[in-house]
Amino acid sequence: MKNQVGHEIDPKLLKDMGLEYHKDASEKDTATLKERLQHNGKLLPSLEEAIRATGLKDGMTISFHHHFRDGDYVLNDVVSTLSRMGYKNMTVASSSLSNAHGPLVQYIKDGTVTRLQSSGCRGKLADAISKREIELVEPMILRSHGGRASAIANGTLHIDVAFLGVASCDALGNASGTNAEGKDMCGSLGYAMVDARYADKVVLLTENLAQYPNVPCSIPATDVDYVVQVPAIGDSSQISSGATRYTKNPRDLLIAESAAKAIIASGYFGDGFSIQTGSGGAALAVTRFLEGEMQDKGITADFALGGITSQIVKMHEAGLVKTVIDVQSFDGEAARSIRDNPGHVEIDGNQYASPFNEGSAIHQLDVVILSALEIDTDFNVNVLTGSDGIIRGAIGGHPDTATCAALTVIVSPLIRGRIPCVVDHVGCLITEGSVCDVLVTDVGIAVNPRRPEVEERLRKAGMKVKTIGQLRDEAYAVVGKPEELKFGDKVVGIVTAPDGAVLDVIRSVK
Amino acid sequence: MKNQVGHEIDPKLLKDMGLEYHKDASEKDTATLKERLQHNGKLLPSLEEAIRATGLKDGMTISFHHHFRDGDYVLNDVVSTLSRMGYKNMTVASSSLSNAHGPLVQYIKDGTVTRLQSSGCRGKLADAISKREIELVEPMILRSHGGRASAIANGTLHIDVAFLGVASCDALGNASGTNAEGKDMCGSLGYAMVDARYADKVVLLTENLAQYPNVPCSIPATDVDYVVQVPAIGDSSQISSGATRYTKNPRDLLIAESAAKAIIASGYFGDGFSIQTGSGGAALAVTRFLEGEMQDKGITADFALGGITSQIVKMHEAGLVKTVIDVQSFDGEAARSIRDNPGHVEIDGNQYASPFNEGSAIHQLDVVILSALEIDTDFNVNVLTGSDGIIRGAIGGHPDTATCAALTVIVSPLIRGRIPCVVDHVGCLITEGSVCDVLVTDVGIAVNPRRPEVEERLRKAGMKVKTIGQLRDEAYAVVGKPEELKFGDKVVGIVTAPDGAVLDVIRSVK
Repeated sequence: MKNQVGHEIDPKLLKDMGLEYHKDASEKDTATLKERLQHNGKLLPSLEEAIRATGLKDGMTISFHHHFRDGDYVLNDVVSTLSRMGYKNMTVASSSLSNAHGPLVQYIKDGTVTRLQSSGCRGKLADAISKREIELVEPMILRSHGGRASAIANGTLHIDVAFLGVASCDALGNASGTNAEGKDMCGSLGYAMVDARYADKVVLLTENLAQYPNVPCSIPATDVDYVVQVPAIGDSSQISSGATRYTKNPRDLLIAESAAKAIIASGYFGDGFSIQTGSGGAALAVTRFLEGEMQDKGITADFALGGITSQIVKMHEAGLVKTVIDVQSFDGEAARSIRDNPGHVEIDGNQYASPFNEGSAIHQLDVVILSALEIDTDFNVNVLTGSDGIIRGAIGGHPDTATCAALTVIVSPLIRGRIPCVVDHVGCLITEGSVCDVLVTDVGIAVNPRRPEVEERLRKAGMKVKTIGQLRDEAYAVVGKPEELKFGDKVVGIVTAPDGAVLDVIRSVK
Repeated sequence: MKNQVGHEIDPKLLKDMGLEYHKDASEKDTATLKERLQHNGKLLPSLEEAIRATGLKDGMTISFHHHFRDGDYVLNDVVSTLSRMGYKNMTVASSSLSNAHGPLVQYIKDGTVTRLQSSGCRGKLADAISKREIELVEPMILRSHGGRASAIANGTLHIDVAFLGVASCDALGNASGTNAEGKDMCGSLGYAMVDARYADKVVLLTENLAQYPNVPCSIPATDVDYVVQVPAIGDSSQISSGATRYTKNPRDLLIAESAAKAIIASGYFGDGFSIQTGSGGAALAVTRFLEGEMQDKGITADFALGGITSQIVKMHEAGLVKTVIDVQSFDGEAARSIRDNPGHVEIDGNQYASPFNEGSAIHQLDVVILSALEIDTDFNVNVLTGSDGIIRGAIGGHPDTATCAALTVIVSPLIRGRIPCVVDHVGCLITEGSVCDVLVTDVGIAVNPRRPEVEERLRKAGMKVKTIGQLRDEAYAVVGKPEELKFGDKVVGIVTAPDGAVLDVIRSVK
C-alpha cells in the first residue's frame, strides 16, 4: 500500500500495532474566526434543540449545580422543558435542591422525574417527599459535596447530560461564574466543574454570551458540547439568603463570639492556621469575632476554605487571610472577589473535598465551624431533617470537613422555637460524633470526651465547659423531652457518608 | 440491622440499590496544618521511593513533558534511576524528545527502554534510531501535540506513571510552571496538564517546594500522587534555543517580512483576527513585521495562540493582542508574563489542539505561520526528517494548526546549506498539502491552487506570486536535483495524523 506521497506502508505492521491508515486528505474550513463564531456547531438557538442534540433518552441521569441556591432558575426550566417534550423517568442529580425547586413536585407527579440525588432538599419538594405526597421509584440518595464529587469521579454517579448555568461563556463554551459587568454572577463554579469534566454531554445555559476567548475560564470549551443563550439563569440576590445570610440575630452573634473564644483557646489558632466556616448565620459569623484577635496578635491565616463570604473577602483584602480557596461563593462580594483578587482562587468539588485524596483542601483544615439542627449526647449531628422528621436541610460539606479538620466546632442554639437542639437521639445521622469535637451553644460549651486536651485548654483559658449531657438536661428542663417521632414505613431518603457508604435512612412521616 | 444511632436499616434495600453500609465510625487526624505538611503521605525523600510507591512495573508506560526543551533534566534522571533499579522494557512516552536526551541511547541498549512515543526526536538519540545503532521492539510512534493529547484523553495512549518537572509545587502537589522567584520557570505546563489528568499515577519533581496552597496552580494536588524535591529539573535558559531562538539571521527576517506582507494582503488580517506562530526563527519573527501595520491601522488581534514568545508578550502588553493563549512558553519572558499578566492564560494540550473538539483553540485560528524542512510541489510538508532521511525534528502542532487555521502559511528558505527545501517529493509526510495554503521563501511566494482567492488578493496587493513548481526549479537550478535516498528495510518510526491514523513511516537509513 502506498501513502499520499508514494511511500510504501505495510498494512501488517499497522495491524500489529493496532493502527489504521489515514485515508482521505484532510480538508479545512477557510472561514474567519468572526464567521466561525457566528455559525459554530455548539451554539444552539434553544434549550429544546440542545436537549435533542445531546441524544438524551428516557431514564437517563441529568445534573445541575446549586451555585444560585434559592435563586436558581435552570433546574426548573430544564425539567419543565423535558416534561413538555415528553421525557419520562429521568434521574435528577443536582449538587443540591432548595426552596427554588418546588415545581419538581409536579414533574415527579407527571412521571418526568422518578429519581433524585442531592446534597439536601428544602421547602415544598422536601415536604412532599417526606409526607409521601409524591413517590419516587427509589429513595432519594443524599450525598455530601465531597461524596458527590468523588462519586462522579469514580463513576458511581454517572451523568448522561449536565445542564449548567454560567454567568458568562463564549460561543464555544469557555465558561465562568463571573462576568465583566457583574450581572447575575454566582462566583465559583466549583461543583459544576466536576459535572462538566465527567458528564457524557454538557449543555451550558447563559444570559451573557461573551466574546471568544472568555478566559480565564472555570469550565473549558473542551468539556462543553452545547451552549444556549437564555433570558435568565438565576437571581443572584438569592444566593446570600437562608443558610448563607449575614446574621444580625443577637443569639447567633453570642454563639459566634463564644465559638471564636473557644477556637482562640483550642491550640489551633496561631499564625499560618487554616479555617472554614460552614453555612448558617452563627457559623458564618465566627470570623467576625476572630478578626480583632488576629489583628491584635499579628496572626494571619494561610487560607480560608469553602463557602466564601464577604467577611472572608474583607479579611483577605486586609491581609489577614493569605489565600481564599473557594468552591462556592456565598454572596455577591465573594463573586466579585474571585473575579478580581488573584489570591482568591476557585477549586472544584474534588479539590475541595475528595475523601479519598490527601490533596483535597479539607485534609489541610485546622478548624471548621459547622451548624447543626440537632446534636445528640454522643456528638452525632443532624443537619438534614427537622424535629418533625421532615427533610429541611442539606448535608453540604458537613461530614467532609468535620472528618478532616483537626478541630471541628459545632455551633447551635440550645433551643430553637420550643425545640431542643441538644437531644438524646438525632433524628438522622449526618456527621458522626467521633469527629465532632466542640459544641458551642448560647448557654454553654461542651467538649467531646475524645478530645480531653482541647477541654483542658479551654478550661485553662477560663472558659466554663459543661458536659453535653448537662446541655441536654438544660434544654429538656425548659421545653421538655421531645416525644419519640412516629415514622411511616417507607424509606424516602438514604444518607451516605463521604466515602459513599450508607450512614442512615430517612423514613416518611406519619 | 441498626446503624450507629439505633435506626433500623434494611440490608436488602441497600443491596437492591448497590449500596454498602458504613461500618466503623470515622476517625480524624488532629495534627495541625503545619504538622501535616511536614509528614504528609505524598512528599517523598527520593525519586527511588516515589518510583516504588507508584507500583511501577516492567513493561509499563511512563511519560514526560518537554517544556524545558533542550534544557530538560527530568527524563534522563528518571530513566537512569529506573536502569539502576533494574527496570526493563519500559515505554517512554514524552510530549517530545530533544538534543537533551542522548543518554536514552544507553538505556535502550541496556533494555531499560524498548519503546518510544514522542512528537519528535533530535541529536544523538535520533541518529542512533535512524542508523539502527539501537533497536526498539516496535517503531517509535510519532504524534502531533493535539494527536498526543487526544490519544491520552481517549485511552489510546495509556500512561501508567507520569514524571513531571514543575517550577513550583507544595507538599500536596499543587503545581505551577512558574514561581515567585522566577527561577527555572518553564511557564505554561500545557502538555504536562494532560498527563497529570489522565495518568494512573503522577510524580512531580521540583526544585522549589512552595508553601501550601501553591495557587493558582496548573496541576491540582488531586491529580498528583507523589512529590519529590530534586536539586534541578532543567536549565530554563535552554528553552529559547534551537527552534525557538530569537533570530537575527537576515534571510529569516527577509522571509518573515515577506510572510507578514502576504498575511496582510490575504484577507485574514483585520481587527479581531487570531494568529499563531510556530517554532523556527522565521516563523516566530513574523509578528515583528505585523506589529507596525497593526499600530498604524489600529488593528488588534483577539488572541495569539500556541508557543508564546517575548514578541507576543510585548504586543499583548502594548494592547495589540487582547488575549494570549499559551500551551508552551518559548522563552523566559513568556514564562514571566503567564505568571503576571491576567490576559495571558494557560491551556492544556486538549484545549489547544484536540482534533475532535470544536472547542479547542486551533479551531478558532485565522492565521498560522509554520516552518518546513521540505515542502513538495503538492504543498506536502516534512518537518521531521532531514534530506539525509535521518530524524531531526518534531511534528509539534504543525498538522494540528495547519488543518484548522483558515490560512496556513509555510515559511522556508528555498535552499538550506546546499539542500533544496522545495522538492518533488518530501522524505516524510507530516502535514498534507491539502491544508497548506501559502509558501513564503526568500526568493518568492507560491499559493496552493486550492486557494485561488488568496492568490488573487496577493496579486492585487502587488505581490509577485510564482508557482511552487517554479520555486522547485529555481532550487534545483542552483543546487541540482537531490539524489533519491537509499533507505534500509526497517521501519523505525510511524507518523500519525492528528486523528491518530497513520500518514507515513520512517525507514532506517543505509
